[in-house]
Amino acid sequence: MKVAVVGATGYTGAELVRLLSMHPKVSGLFLFSRGDGEIDFRQNFLGLDFAGKIKPLDELAKEEFDFSFLALPHGESGRYAGELVRRGVKVIDLSADFRLPLAVYEKWYGPHPAPELVEIAVYGLSEYFSEKIKTARLIANPGCYPTAFLLAVLPLAEKDLLQGVIISDMKSGVTGAGRSAKREMLFGEVAENFRPYGVGGVHRHLPEMENILNNYAQGLRVIFTPHLIPMKRGILGTIYLDLKQNLSTEELRKIYLNKFHDNPFIKILPEGYLPETRAVAGTNNVLIALNKEPGGKVIITVAIDNLGKGAAGQAVQNMNLMAGLDETCGLKNTGIYF
Amino acid sequence: MKVAVVGATGYTGAELVRLLSMHPKVSGLFLFSRGDGEIDFRQNFLGLDFAGKIKPLDELAKEEFDFSFLALPHGESGRYAGELVRRGVKVIDLSADFRLPLAVYEKWYGPHPAPELVEIAVYGLSEYFSEKIKTARLIANPGCYPTAFLLAVLPLAEKDLLQGVIISDMKSGVTGAGRSAKREMLFGEVAENFRPYGVGGVHRHLPEMENILNNYAQGLRVIFTPHLIPMKRGILGTIYLDLKQNLSTEELRKIYLNKFHDNPFIKILPEGYLPETRAVAGTNNVLIALNKEPGGKVIITVAIDNLGKGAAGQAVQNMNLMAGLDETCGLKNTGIYF
Amino acid sequence: MKVAVVGATGYTGAELVRLLSMHPKVSGLFLFSRGDGEIDFRQNFLGLDFAGKIKPLDELAKEEFDFSFLALPHGESGRYAGELVRRGVKVIDLSADFRLPLAVYEKWYGPHPAPELVEIAVYGLSEYFSEKIKTARLIANPGCYPTAFLLAVLPLAEKDLLQGVIISDMKSGVTGAGRSAKREMLFGEVAENFRPYGVGGVHRHLPEMENILNNYAQGLRVIFTPHLIPMKRGILGTIYLDLKQNLSTEELRKIYLNKFHDNPFIKILPEGYLPETRAVAGTNNVLIALNKEPGGKVIITVAIDNLGKGAAGQAVQNMNLMAGLDETCGLKNTGIYF
Amino acid sequence: MKVAVVGATGYTGAELVRLLSMHPKVSGLFLFSRGDGEIDFRQNFLGLDFAGKIKPLDELAKEEFDFSFLALPHGESGRYAGELVRRGVKVIDLSADFRLPLAVYEKWYGPHPAPELVEIAVYGLSEYFSEKIKTARLIANPGCYPTAFLLAVLPLAEKDLLQGVIISDMKSGVTGAGRSAKREMLFGEVAENFRPYGVGGVHRHLPEMENILNNYAQGLRVIFTPHLIPMKRGILGTIYLDLKQNLSTEELRKIYLNKFHDNPFIKILPEGYLPETRAVAGTNNVLIALNKEPGGKVIITVAIDNLGKGAAGQAVQNMNLMAGLDETCGLKNTGIYF
Repeated sequence: MKVAVVGATGYTGAELVRLLSMHPKVSGLFLFSRGDGEIDFRQNFLGLDFAGKIKPLDELAKEEFDFSFLALPHGESGRYAGELVRRGVKVIDLSADFRLPLAVYEKWYGPHPAPELVEIAVYGLSEYFSEKIKTARLIANPGCYPTAFLLAVLPLAEKDLLQGVIISDMKSGVTGAGRSAKREMLFGEVAENFRPYGVGGVHRHLPEMENILNNYAQGLRVIFTPHLIPMKRGILGTIYLDLKQNLSTEELRKIYLNKFHDNPFIKILPEGYLPETRAVAGTNNVLIALNKEPGGKVIITVAIDNLGKGAAGQAVQNMNLMAGLDETCGLKNTGIYF
Repeated sequence: MKVAVVGATGYTGAELVRLLSMHPKVSGLFLFSRGDGEIDFRQNFLGLDFAGKIKPLDELAKEEFDFSFLALPHGESGRYAGELVRRGVKVIDLSADFRLPLAVYEKWYGPHPAPELVEIAVYGLSEYFSEKIKTARLIANPGCYPTAFLLAVLPLAEKDLLQGVIISDMKSGVTGAGRSAKREMLFGEVAENFRPYGVGGVHRHLPEMENILNNYAQGLRVIFTPHLIPMKRGILGTIYLDLKQNLSTEELRKIYLNKFHDNPFIKILPEGYLPETRAVAGTNNVLIALNKEPGGKVIITVAIDNLGKGAAGQAVQNMNLMAGLDETCGLKNTGIYF
Repeated sequence: MKVAVVGATGYTGAELVRLLSMHPKVSGLFLFSRGDGEIDFRQNFLGLDFAGKIKPLDELAKEEFDFSFLALPHGESGRYAGELVRRGVKVIDLSADFRLPLAVYEKWYGPHPAPELVEIAVYGLSEYFSEKIKTARLIANPGCYPTAFLLAVLPLAEKDLLQGVIISDMKSGVTGAGRSAKREMLFGEVAENFRPYGVGGVHRHLPEMENILNNYAQGLRVIFTPHLIPMKRGILGTIYLDLKQNLSTEELRKIYLNKFHDNPFIKILPEGYLPETRAVAGTNNVLIALNKEPGGKVIITVAIDNLGKGAAGQAVQNMNLMAGLDETCGLKNTGIYF
Repeated sequence: MKVAVVGATGYTGAELVRLLSMHPKVSGLFLFSRGDGEIDFRQNFLGLDFAGKIKPLDELAKEEFDFSFLALPHGESGRYAGELVRRGVKVIDLSADFRLPLAVYEKWYGPHPAPELVEIAVYGLSEYFSEKIKTARLIANPGCYPTAFLLAVLPLAEKDLLQGVIISDMKSGVTGAGRSAKREMLFGEVAENFRPYGVGGVHRHLPEMENILNNYAQGLRVIFTPHLIPMKRGILGTIYLDLKQNLSTEELRKIYLNKFHDNPFIKILPEGYLPETRAVAGTNNVLIALNKEPGGKVIITVAIDNLGKGAAGQAVQNMNLMAGLDETCGLKNTGIYF
């Protein structure tokens, strides 16, 4: 297969390059970015040792490829997705442009760049929508926080076991904020610091969480607080839920083990283990632990790599599904582990 | 005043040395630790540039001082507190030994090393118990997590504005775990990692939070989840509360501003600001922000330095109160700020 | 005294604000930056808890003050220095504009913004030029790397004990690169990375080192390689020297102890101790260790805080000298120590 | 092939497990450590997702395998190597026990645990000794610092282009110090700190560097200063050399390109590029840049992953050579890259 990565100078784009350059079924890899002129990929990421050039976006039409990953800011992705879909290229969009119903999108993001495509987009939460993904022409790859949240919560929601308010206290490494030069993301500002942001229902991943959750259960409300961790990769979510009926930790764990029985990336941890971000860095894995506190609330802790299952890893998993490959193809390596 | 720091090779002990060696009213500083023989303080903390020796504990009886800070593990502190109190030395104990009613202590920690002293100990949350602190002979200096939690929550609890379950999702830098050599606290294990621990109501700071909270309000329950941040100093708490009546953020802020009007270390942040740990590193300050989410829950975010207001800073503040000094004496320097 | 900090949103400017706001002789502090309009200092550095405003540079003429610290990029500082000097304000310039002879400056930096002032500027290496500093109207505050290098090497150079090539392998935390938003200084680029830069005699601090060194000894050549450490504050230099005559480590140490006998910030470490950056963070101290290797070369290791003795700390020390104060005034606090 | 990793709870052991569990020719993997009883590997390294058990060393004799990696402290490795060699197991020893001539070993390390094996051991610097490695029964896998140093310097030494003193200023992440619990390696001690250690010719990797170097060139002397970087993985060496004849940077680069033409892990960087540790993290790659400074000295900068080419990666490369496989087998994945 030939594939294109659009936005190859960012962290998500580079992680796509890492995964796709090791993928056994990928025979051609084209890189593009919004910059002017060609640039050596290696000037951006020496460690990837990838000898290719990154081309400007106006050369997108000149190359032939089967799949295209769009790792651009929201609003920009939508502008390119339409042309690619019309050319017959399968598109996996990693921006927010196709994750929400049109009206919700426009409330949170403003005018949509390609409203006519919203209907054909399939939400790419691989474990939940694999059948639709297999035949999709345009994938809305989920946000990093919603991926962690939904995989942790949907198994209970779809069994109608939840009620009331779900509190999702989530923490992320800095690469979730992208690679453009912002003062607040300087090492001098981030190191030896931990801080919340977007407190009080204002983060744009909240409607994405609620939108999918509402497909499975009614009457639930989500409170979501993101925080910035002084580290590069990883999301850790601590989620507090109320059950409609009393289930033991062991019964809860069985629900998850059954649900994800055929999903090799989802690891339901045995008793006594808790997720940690280093254990998923560089992988497409999702670690989930289930605990109850003395008063009966369920506490789910979940860890993903925001660039792995939270972005590039899940995008490649979706490409595998669309291409009829095993979903783990090219995703089994352990990047790093401590 | 002459003061002793017992346990001067740990992080809390060293922070006490830093603060006391800059304190304008401290004229003599004696250091002790559980090790054998004398050791140069500078071998442990070159940066403090403090020329003194650390002596073994069996020399505690040979020196004269007015105040003694015990920065020893729980169970050990209690053993030394009694003798010091009997000598007429005022004791500020930074262990957990005198923070809880006896029965609660023994449930969580086992047999008490000095049960006869529990009754005379005063809980050293300076802003709430200053009158008792001024005349106390033995202070139970609060735990780091409870300090952040209680200062964030008590102003609403004491006005009977809270109901139901309080969720306290808290995150701490590594110095809270002490300075003894443990594999799990190695740089190689902690860096580029974020993890929860003590999930499900098992952390020993939970009964301390509940015990004080219950003095001010009935029927509240606390869920407390601690997490480890890859950084050295700082606690950030994200606390979710339900109000009994509908109050605006501005009304809430007024309650806090009134409550802490005369407490110079408590900073109630104006709208648009959120606490961050670097802003309190090296200080005795407490930053508190009040937010409401669309559904009406209150989200309080709070930051302290776990070694400052969470340990050594508050201990010196308590010494100031006990000595009739201004409570900010020796605590106004800004150690570091980004 | 009333003082102004020009460039108060950068790291050096903010460190000046920290030190000056705790300085017992500073009664007024005016802040300026190159931005438009007034901004709250606290929006930049919440942790400093400094309630003042930062004003635009065109208001510089409206305020009265005795000392002015210029923490601006080279080329900019020179533009403001002249006007201030003419007003009778004493100027301490932290840029490179007045550190070099005019011809050398123009070779490395291009046209000089205020060539007429170069002659009156005094190089502010406090321990070496204190007499000139006391009466200066314009101080060229030394660069961070040259400060560490010169204090480590000059005691031997001025006794004509050195020969040949001096290799200065130096490592710095990121704040030396300033606070403007650059991709290469993002946390995601710096963390878990260590890299050299400016290899091969191209760093602009090299002529500054050589220029001062040549005042004290002839025929020496310096090779200087800077590196970037994944941390915020601190410079560690490892310097390799050839002696003209055979001296023991103890004899070398005596030379330094004698030289710096009356310089309280310079700490010559006893045998068995080595400098480390955490031991100087937040201070104006300089730690120096002297070692010889089996073949006879001297290895000097030196640590400073690049924002302390390497910038703001030395600038305040120079202000103290100019104002006839004790040079340690306001500089004795230990900010942090591990 | 079946392989054993002895010492699987340390960082080097775990990196071996990571690489060997992804190796296409490894069909069985046995883990051992010095602890008592069996332990789950996952309890040590959750992220590796390796389901096996670690067995105590006394079960080493009960299992059959073709290769054995010894990742034990020096002195311990030698005790097990003999028995394994006699059993016909090929041994790759990652300790220092077989890296030095016997007399040199005993001077630096004390009595040798298996002196009779020293003669049959082959020094496993893959690019230099591949022919001997292919038929060896016992490999002394090189130290991390010597690997970086020798690959950077030998191409010039073996052409007799060097003279005088070679200064090797090297910096390493913390995993080089192993995973046992030591106070000085706690996160609280290492983070935001940079420090030299072993200054003045006392580090045990120095005789290893000199011993190999002397095989290729006479009359050279090495000064080696190690430093500790606040990060997990990576070594960066800055090496200062004097040439016997004047060669341009381009001529130097050609020598290296020719030398390592068939060595896929060695990357000689083009002009304008410098090595950095993140670019080799998780790989077996070696990045080398060649620069000259104005006075004619050559400055070589070199980066490796201390756990990759500096330990486990080179060990697997040596296994590949011994097994007649392509030396890159199982070593081509990019673990992480920024």
